[in-house]
Amino acid sequence: MKKFFLTALLGASLIANSSFAMTKPVKLVDQGSFFAGGTVIQSDGNYNPTDPKDFSGQTLHGDHAYVFYQIPVKAKKYPLVFLHGSGQSGKTWETTPDGRDGFQNIFLERGYATYIIDQPRRGRAGRSTLPENISARPDDQLWYYNFRIGIYPDVYDGVNFPRDKSSADQFLRQMTPNTGAFNQKIIADAMVAVFEKSGEGILITHSAGGGPGWETAIRSDKVKAVISLEPGTFPFPEGEVPPAEETTSPFPARGQSVSRADFLKLIKIPIVVYFGDNIPSGDKPVANWGQDNWRVRLNLALKWAQVAKKYGGDVEIVYLPDIGITGSTHFMMSDLNNLEIADVIETWLKSKKLI
Amino acid sequence: MKKFFLTALLGASLIANSSFAMTKPVKLVDQGSFFAGGTVIQSDGNYNPTDPKDFSGQTLHGDHAYVFYQIPVKAKKYPLVFLHGSGQSGKTWETTPDGRDGFQNIFLERGYATYIIDQPRRGRAGRSTLPENISARPDDQLWYYNFRIGIYPDVYDGVNFPRDKSSADQFLRQMTPNTGAFNQKIIADAMVAVFEKSGEGILITHSAGGGPGWETAIRSDKVKAVISLEPGTFPFPEGEVPPAEETTSPFPARGQSVSRADFLKLIKIPIVVYFGDNIPSGDKPVANWGQDNWRVRLNLALKWAQVAKKYGGDVEIVYLPDIGITGSTHFMMSDLNNLEIADVIETWLKSKKLI
Repeated sequence: MKKFFLTALLGASLIANSSFAMTKPVKLVDQGSFFAGGTVIQSDGNYNPTDPKDFSGQTLHGDHAYVFYQIPVKAKKYPLVFLHGSGQSGKTWETTPDGRDGFQNIFLERGYATYIIDQPRRGRAGRSTLPENISARPDDQLWYYNFRIGIYPDVYDGVNFPRDKSSADQFLRQMTPNTGAFNQKIIADAMVAVFEKSGEGILITHSAGGGPGWETAIRSDKVKAVISLEPGTFPFPEGEVPPAEETTSPFPARGQSVSRADFLKLIKIPIVVYFGDNIPSGDKPVANWGQDNWRVRLNLALKWAQVAKKYGGDVEIVYLPDIGITGSTHFMMSDLNNLEIADVIETWLKSKKLI
Repeated sequence: MKKFFLTALLGASLIANSSFAMTKPVKLVDQGSFFAGGTVIQSDGNYNPTDPKDFSGQTLHGDHAYVFYQIPVKAKKYPLVFLHGSGQSGKTWETTPDGRDGFQNIFLERGYATYIIDQPRRGRAGRSTLPENISARPDDQLWYYNFRIGIYPDVYDGVNFPRDKSSADQFLRQMTPNTGAFNQKIIADAMVAVFEKSGEGILITHSAGGGPGWETAIRSDKVKAVISLEPGTFPFPEGEVPPAEETTSPFPARGQSVSRADFLKLIKIPIVVYFGDNIPSGDKPVANWGQDNWRVRLNLALKWAQVAKKYGGDVEIVYLPDIGITGSTHFMMSDLNNLEIADVIETWLKSKKLI
């Protein structure tokens, strides 16, 4: 907290100049980046190098993920693999909008190797095999509301989001468009390939990263646990998908249907799911659609946990206010109390003997 | 070289698992990311939070750069600020396609702070104030040819590009589309803001990053030198822009016109420009348009240096084969001999007392 107030007082220009923004120095034995997964498409005809206007027979390498990894000295057993959510890139996990350590630095400082992903058709993994129209329609306020920060430019009472204008500005610039349609299978394909490179690890997903994250855990035996922050959806065994609840949100919360065998594959690893604050309870839609969007998702999570437990799964749904942590937004990894959230996650990892 | 052959022999899966891909461990005192520059647009009308289909009055924060910075212990005086070229992102400077250290790691290991940019409307800085249609037209071979690697899938004799298929695959996946039209002024605006955060530093540009790079150096007194790798264009004082040479390339090499005052601002700092191999000389177009594209740019560079020297500029154009370095592609920062290129750059920095 102290750091945040300092930043707010002294202005944003100091953020990058601070020589000790990291809580403590980190000795890296490796860092780098690579692309994982993806495919190649080719136009008809034969490649003709002599005519730059003739694109016959040329290829496009696309639909891969971009991965930036860092390995500190004496790294813990399992690396953490971070998959962002809707409209975001790997930036989600980096420096917070008010210039504090994000999960990338926090966990690196605690001795974890980190793998930060840009999913296929997003960010530095922008090369898509499908065309896309980007509208540039202003929609900051839609996301601000849906991310449960408040009603722009206001914030909800007690919410763990910085109050200064520069931080809100940085936060909104994290949005970056799809450069091709969202495709869960393509993202999961790439994530399976990421785990082939990282080796056995812990998958941490956020929001719309939840769906591809579950599919990745089903398909890769390298995923040893999933930590999911407000995932958008959940997979259920065929025939057990609950009906979608009515909501005032434009984004319905539908469960996904997977084979029972796949469902059992998923729930044989430990799974924990966290939801933040300002999520109404009950089965009645509320007028605030940005909050109602998460009411139906939290309800879906609870139904999913029931089914998972019925089949013997070691799964946990944590509504943070229930454990005394209030004010969390949809972006708990960059909230003012993100160190506290990291503690909660690390305590869970320890309890599952994953570190 | 040894590392590359090892990688090729053992397969790509080892790249990220290697615990010592970095030549030596690096102790970081800080790392993080932020957005620099950019603007805000707003739709007409008043924001209505209750209707998610009503986008009236909403804003879009766009046209910023994305910056990832790292500061090693006892960092040298000036950070290095890296601006990529056409169709690329900050990935240009990271791990090479065959899994060796790129300039990001090489210079970090040598004690430089690094700032790696995604220019506005590219990569993680994808949020644009203008709409864009992304065609997904296959054009890998066009770039491969224009980057002077060879005629796909072949490589030119002796070229410093890895021969294995996996490396070519990784290289082509570095391409990532514009999410809004290229705009030199917007990129320079953002780069000036980057230097406000980094403080005084050395600007290293590549290819299409050259144009915005020169403009940045003109507008920011924080830029203490420019190192430009095969820039696409050069600024000349008004009335002294040479006519564009005839070329078989579809990308003409036109000089840019700036005021004499601005030109003098630029050339008061030391500047060095490097060009790789397989660039024909002379004033006659050659049939290989991928090579001819760089013939006219090298010629433009030489004309620019003459003008700069006439006005007292400390500028140097280096055609690498002239100093005994052969086989360089357009991507000398990730070529097989990129350590040698880094040495050349560091020797220049030393000679200018910039380290």
